[in-house]
Amino acid sequence: MSYRIEKDTMGEVKVPADKLWGAQTERSRNNFKIGPSASMPLEIIYGFAYLKKAAAYTNCELGVLAIEKRDHIANVCNEILEGKHDDQFPLVIWQTGSGTQSNMNVNEVIANRAHQLAGFVIGEGEKTIQPNDDVNKSQSSNDTFPTGMHIAAYKKIVENTIPGVRQLRETLKKKSDAFKNVVKIGRTHLMDATPLTLGQELSGYVAQLDHGMNALENTLAHLSELALGGTAVGTGLNTPKGYSKRVAEYIAEFTGLPFVTAPNKFEALAAHDALVETHGALKQLAVSLNKIANDIRMMASGPRSGIGEISIPANEPGSSIMPGKVNPTQCEALTMVCAQVIGNDVAVSVGGMQGHYELNVFKPVMAANVLQSAQLIGDACVSFDENCAVGIEPNQEVITKLLNNSLMLVTALNTKIGYYKAAEIANTAHENGTTLKEEAVRLGYVTPEDYDAWVKPEDMVGALK
Amino acid sequence: MSYRIEKDTMGEVKVPADKLWGAQTERSRNNFKIGPSASMPLEIIYGFAYLKKAAAYTNCELGVLAIEKRDHIANVCNEILEGKHDDQFPLVIWQTGSGTQSNMNVNEVIANRAHQLAGFVIGEGEKTIQPNDDVNKSQSSNDTFPTGMHIAAYKKIVENTIPGVRQLRETLKKKSDAFKNVVKIGRTHLMDATPLTLGQELSGYVAQLDHGMNALENTLAHLSELALGGTAVGTGLNTPKGYSKRVAEYIAEFTGLPFVTAPNKFEALAAHDALVETHGALKQLAVSLNKIANDIRMMASGPRSGIGEISIPANEPGSSIMPGKVNPTQCEALTMVCAQVIGNDVAVSVGGMQGHYELNVFKPVMAANVLQSAQLIGDACVSFDENCAVGIEPNQEVITKLLNNSLMLVTALNTKIGYYKAAEIANTAHENGTTLKEEAVRLGYVTPEDYDAWVKPEDMVGALK
Amino acid sequence: MSYRIEKDTMGEVKVPADKLWGAQTERSRNNFKIGPSASMPLEIIYGFAYLKKAAAYTNCELGVLAIEKRDHIANVCNEILEGKHDDQFPLVIWQTGSGTQSNMNVNEVIANRAHQLAGFVIGEGEKTIQPNDDVNKSQSSNDTFPTGMHIAAYKKIVENTIPGVRQLRETLKKKSDAFKNVVKIGRTHLMDATPLTLGQELSGYVAQLDHGMNALENTLAHLSELALGGTAVGTGLNTPKGYSKRVAEYIAEFTGLPFVTAPNKFEALAAHDALVETHGALKQLAVSLNKIANDIRMMASGPRSGIGEISIPANEPGSSIMPGKVNPTQCEALTMVCAQVIGNDVAVSVGGMQGHYELNVFKPVMAANVLQSAQLIGDACVSFDENCAVGIEPNQEVITKLLNNSLMLVTALNTKIGYYKAAEIANTAHENGTTLKEEAVRLGYVTPEDYDAWVKPEDMVGALK
Amino acid sequence: MSYRIEKDTMGEVKVPADKLWGAQTERSRNNFKIGPSASMPLEIIYGFAYLKKAAAYTNCELGVLAIEKRDHIANVCNEILEGKHDDQFPLVIWQTGSGTQSNMNVNEVIANRAHQLAGFVIGEGEKTIQPNDDVNKSQSSNDTFPTGMHIAAYKKIVENTIPGVRQLRETLKKKSDAFKNVVKIGRTHLMDATPLTLGQELSGYVAQLDHGMNALENTLAHLSELALGGTAVGTGLNTPKGYSKRVAEYIAEFTGLPFVTAPNKFEALAAHDALVETHGALKQLAVSLNKIANDIRMMASGPRSGIGEISIPANEPGSSIMPGKVNPTQCEALTMVCAQVIGNDVAVSVGGMQGHYELNVFKPVMAANVLQSAQLIGDACVSFDENCAVGIEPNQEVITKLLNNSLMLVTALNTKIGYYKAAEIANTAHENGTTLKEEAVRLGYVTPEDYDAWVKPEDMVGALK
Repeated sequence: MSYRIEKDTMGEVKVPADKLWGAQTERSRNNFKIGPSASMPLEIIYGFAYLKKAAAYTNCELGVLAIEKRDHIANVCNEILEGKHDDQFPLVIWQTGSGTQSNMNVNEVIANRAHQLAGFVIGEGEKTIQPNDDVNKSQSSNDTFPTGMHIAAYKKIVENTIPGVRQLRETLKKKSDAFKNVVKIGRTHLMDATPLTLGQELSGYVAQLDHGMNALENTLAHLSELALGGTAVGTGLNTPKGYSKRVAEYIAEFTGLPFVTAPNKFEALAAHDALVETHGALKQLAVSLNKIANDIRMMASGPRSGIGEISIPANEPGSSIMPGKVNPTQCEALTMVCAQVIGNDVAVSVGGMQGHYELNVFKPVMAANVLQSAQLIGDACVSFDENCAVGIEPNQEVITKLLNNSLMLVTALNTKIGYYKAAEIANTAHENGTTLKEEAVRLGYVTPEDYDAWVKPEDMVGALK
Repeated sequence: MSYRIEKDTMGEVKVPADKLWGAQTERSRNNFKIGPSASMPLEIIYGFAYLKKAAAYTNCELGVLAIEKRDHIANVCNEILEGKHDDQFPLVIWQTGSGTQSNMNVNEVIANRAHQLAGFVIGEGEKTIQPNDDVNKSQSSNDTFPTGMHIAAYKKIVENTIPGVRQLRETLKKKSDAFKNVVKIGRTHLMDATPLTLGQELSGYVAQLDHGMNALENTLAHLSELALGGTAVGTGLNTPKGYSKRVAEYIAEFTGLPFVTAPNKFEALAAHDALVETHGALKQLAVSLNKIANDIRMMASGPRSGIGEISIPANEPGSSIMPGKVNPTQCEALTMVCAQVIGNDVAVSVGGMQGHYELNVFKPVMAANVLQSAQLIGDACVSFDENCAVGIEPNQEVITKLLNNSLMLVTALNTKIGYYKAAEIANTAHENGTTLKEEAVRLGYVTPEDYDAWVKPEDMVGALK
Repeated sequence: MSYRIEKDTMGEVKVPADKLWGAQTERSRNNFKIGPSASMPLEIIYGFAYLKKAAAYTNCELGVLAIEKRDHIANVCNEILEGKHDDQFPLVIWQTGSGTQSNMNVNEVIANRAHQLAGFVIGEGEKTIQPNDDVNKSQSSNDTFPTGMHIAAYKKIVENTIPGVRQLRETLKKKSDAFKNVVKIGRTHLMDATPLTLGQELSGYVAQLDHGMNALENTLAHLSELALGGTAVGTGLNTPKGYSKRVAEYIAEFTGLPFVTAPNKFEALAAHDALVETHGALKQLAVSLNKIANDIRMMASGPRSGIGEISIPANEPGSSIMPGKVNPTQCEALTMVCAQVIGNDVAVSVGGMQGHYELNVFKPVMAANVLQSAQLIGDACVSFDENCAVGIEPNQEVITKLLNNSLMLVTALNTKIGYYKAAEIANTAHENGTTLKEEAVRLGYVTPEDYDAWVKPEDMVGALK
Repeated sequence: MSYRIEKDTMGEVKVPADKLWGAQTERSRNNFKIGPSASMPLEIIYGFAYLKKAAAYTNCELGVLAIEKRDHIANVCNEILEGKHDDQFPLVIWQTGSGTQSNMNVNEVIANRAHQLAGFVIGEGEKTIQPNDDVNKSQSSNDTFPTGMHIAAYKKIVENTIPGVRQLRETLKKKSDAFKNVVKIGRTHLMDATPLTLGQELSGYVAQLDHGMNALENTLAHLSELALGGTAVGTGLNTPKGYSKRVAEYIAEFTGLPFVTAPNKFEALAAHDALVETHGALKQLAVSLNKIANDIRMMASGPRSGIGEISIPANEPGSSIMPGKVNPTQCEALTMVCAQVIGNDVAVSVGGMQGHYELNVFKPVMAANVLQSAQLIGDACVSFDENCAVGIEPNQEVITKLLNNSLMLVTALNTKIGYYKAAEIANTAHENGTTLKEEAVRLGYVTPEDYDAWVKPEDMVGALK
């Protein structure tokens, strides 16, 4: 393997010759050999690319960066955003808590790549642009990393999480409408209760997801606030006048998302309550999805000795010996995702609560958990939707049998023969293992004809008044 | 001890003669002997009182309850809300997960007390009003308990949590304004950094609490949705037409809070995502408060061998031997509260995720945790405010000494003598344990006069641009 | 209300005349008005009573306390342990994080009560014994509070938690033995699977609880280590030679439990990993119990339209209209307890991780959560045992029907007619909604007699090899 | 890209021609497109390789598998364990909750690779060994996956976690011994307290890690229990007599670790409390490490305006402008790891609590979290040790200054001049901002000579008695 020498203020470092990164990135690679597969999420790198470009434009506009340097920086940022340099960001989550080395990684790659694009060989001649003085101008790790993570999280939420949840929501709404007349037994405490329709049942899931998406959207305003312009401690030292507002406008323009400069930069560096807030809503969605997936697998359980009121698609051989054994594998993947997200929420809180003075140094772990949870929920909703929810169908025969078996239908007789006689019918049927109708007739309280006319489950599910 | 006999559908039960409750309450007392001091929160009982009264008014208005019965019910509800029967609700949190027995406890107390108020002896004569048929008319435990917990949580948030947080926020804002010119050293990674003002530092806390209150208020819309009218499974079986909308209006009127009927009753019974959502915001406040309290106790640490930049009130003897040892006890109480709230958040999630079919049966534990967290945060903010925050004062002498000691001030020379000479000054001072000024002069880069003119920390904290 | 004047180093304080506590307790009452019903657990006060008595004996034995004073202290400690002064400890959990005021509360009550017992009036004459100099001799809040909480937690675990869990375990074991021949369908992924016996199913729960108790017992060694003797920072300043070992021996003698002096006092003051460890095992039990309670309520679901394989006792009217609706209320209380314990675990971790230097100041919140969880699990197991588990009975008819319905029994034919024919039988039965036997005979692969001879579920559950 | 056709009971599937996997693996790849970088941990695949080989040996020994087939299977397992096929296991964590497809992935790869090794082309000719009938003989996903995850977790704990923690523990012990005479101020409540030595302080950390490793080792017995032999529901259906005990012996032999067959297979499939138990101990270590890392960064804070009692290695440029700004980056990486592990613990609990009937279907998420936490703690301890702990050195000058400044040293005068005069000295010094000695002499209570003779911090740290 061949190397070149890169330098920083601590001295020289050998870097693999074919890599764009520099000394500080290489140091970090060696100092933090922690954990399995824990690369800094590329979304954060892309967030950096947006902000580096925006900073270059702002610095140029405010007269502190030459237009040629601006364009050098912007060109490399565009390449990064096109995914051309994904393998140039080797650092892990478990590094300096401010993400300093990832900021430097981006600075180094931009500077070295710009040197290449300018026709030079990396490591030879004067650098076309300097990683610190040019690429990082008017910036600090302390304000760039939180800006990068807000950009990454916001994009992930609106491009992955919400569309994924909405896709599932739409399918459940369609199913709810389609099954609006499928009257089935209700269950409370897992026990037989009065009837409702399958459509009504599903409408509750739709309402859960609507509330969850609304809660998530409520957190976007906080997430749209960018720390950039605060520099080292929030005072904006070494930034030109007008910088913070303008740089946020450029980021908004480049991303097409409504980012603004954080009104209070001290909060934006020292606390990451915006991530706590956003993850809280992701956790709420996990809580909702767990309930929904659980219900669906219970209703689909069987095929013979469970509840069996609905069927769901068979996507994999459940067992080589037992046809009809359709395991609810999408429910399982989704509820595992929910477990992870509920755990991640605690990790985010534990990180968020431990900021000290002017800086919270749990940035990478907080950002990584938010991004993972946001993607897991979005992806799992799509997977669940396409491989399970779209195929939910009622097993009408089972539904009807379980409905008609239920002793709770006796409620319908209350207004006809009075509470006590109705109770006697139900009680007797329970003891004898008979049907309500059998006992109603046997006891002489109701004729078979009247029973059929009066005990109609479909009249018990009526529109809410 | 003397007893009377009460009956329910399972038979007779002996109840203490001096108590207003009935058979089902007594059964629950005996069946759930779980845990230390775990009474169902009175706030939920009061929530029930509001809703029972509202249901009585609605039932009367819709023609299914006599006006005399309505007034009997309303009168007892008023007494309950005046706190006259606080000892009549002996049940615990760890009971039926739908809170059924607490609903019955309220029904029984209202019925028996109404009988008393009508001039009769409890247990004698025909009941003036029936606990099930009259007090519980058009209701089910399944919709009353969630309604009671929403009323209780909403009231607690707006009457205790938010005012408490706001009180602390106002004090911190005043302090932030008062200390806006107190220039001090900044710290990132716990290490010396460039300066900022104490006012700026505190402004970050204000911003945190503003964001936290905003997040909490965002959750109130979901919390304002009431399940009442859904009855057993959400279909509204056995409620008169127009009931659910009207009963929510009465509750809004009686409480003075903007409650509405839940658009989807199936969600309102089977999921309690509204509590998950609200507690998520309480947890966010806990995360913020932990950071704030931690900073304050670190800045107040000492008095001689810590940071010692601020002083806080001495409320208790810290040690009989050491005057000046002011322990940051309010910070400790507040951060203990934060730990509890962060834990409670998980309890609420674990409860919320496990609804089954038409009912979530973790209602009491979810409600109890939300109410405890909401009160703890409100109370702890007030206690912290009145016994600590109001007394925060800068120790100007220490602040100045630590500020002037800092090697980070060398940043101010960058634009005068260039980066490399500035770095050399700082480096030499660090190695020799000397001051920047000493080395700057000794190295011949700056005159003493220029040093004093150029290195002004107060110029490094400038308004954000 | 009448008051007397008490003094401490900060001056005079008015104390209710009929109370035994003194100045510092009264200050704390006023400075920490936080939260609902959050008294410092009495178990910790009793822990203090044991250690104050042990300290008095040790101090006397080592020559630094007069024998008369020793006896004064011991007498009041005995009274406290008899429960005679439970109302003299009014302080809350949310106080100084070292529990200083609760230590002083105990010191003050012992001193004042000793003065009474000596025939004097509190507040008059020279104090018979001094709260600081005598009762607190050779002690500090920093080592007494952790000692008190270890005593309290250890006792709670061995007197409440483990006996409660064991009681439930014994019942489940008896049921497992009783139902060892009740062959039923197994379920994996909630789907029909090969058979097992109900006894085998319950034996899994027994194994879970055995493992859980074992895990809990593994934590007792750490919990048996007492901080007493470390005094303020762990160095044992101001303790006589031999003190720490001897005082632990006295505590072991007085409590009858195997307490020892902590080998490292610095850890014992600055970290409370022993509580983290113990609560981790409590959380494991919560995880186990949640699974068990969930299974039982699913198996008992119905009565007509659920699984219905077992019945459990009816303890309360489930619904006035529906006999046979036995809600699994004990399962609900137990799983709510599990949710709380899983949440408490996070609170304990968050407290435990934040010790600073020589002291962890999350002692009260950590201790309170451990004690609550320990009691909740113990009590809930007893309640669940007595009101539910003892009454579990198989519904043989349902079990047989669900077993015989299952297509999984076809597995038994594999070795007789080969895999492919067996699969064809199952497949056809699933498609046609028929029985295995019907299709087996119709397809001509098996005679009815052979089918009955070969397909015997009871042969498929065989003892593990 | 070229493909071949593979079949399973659901039909044909196109598989990339150069891959060893088969139909079921390919289906799973397409059905579960969830989440970023979430491959099933290779450690679990290796666990499978051990168990497949052990099963082949046991099946052969018990007469149900030909010796040639045994050797085919064993040969491929050996290749897998040598890392030759790491890219043949493309499935993700978020799949079927029993890990069924990962079991099949292993079966398919072994069968296809054996076919290759036997000289054939995959997909041509009769399979040399069958994935289901041979490789999976006497097994089910339901017992192999838990076996694989126990093997993986156990190995990770003993090969990575414990050695990593022990390495850090040894360094801290050496430092503790080296600094046993470095007397410094103690701090409680973050406030100045009586002195101790830096060695004593570090000894507390050593004790924490010793307790943590002990707690972790306590969990290994449960983790050593293997589910293999339970097959589908725990009854061991379709296993030869003697199988489960013998297969565990082979696994123990092949891994060199003390695995045994689980005494109760129903627990081993339906609950994963062993993982909950092990992760609980990992979480305890996270709690301990967070305290340790926090203390070290606070003690190293400064260099001028913090505590500054110790120095730690400078591994990266902290800031281009400020020499001496050594950020505690290893503390930050370590505490971020702690946050993650504390969150993962909740994910494991949430998964563990939701087993249903005979199977827990949160296996992959539980195993992945245990493995991640185990590795993170092990790696982070090594990184922290090598890049930080080994370089901890006391800053003697600062330590002495802070020690001598402390007013708490007045405690030493108590026995010479009495408590009240000592308190007056301390009080006056605090008010006047002077030293104890100055005030002691000025007040006429002590001569300068006596002061120096009596107030010796080194006499206040004495060995525990």
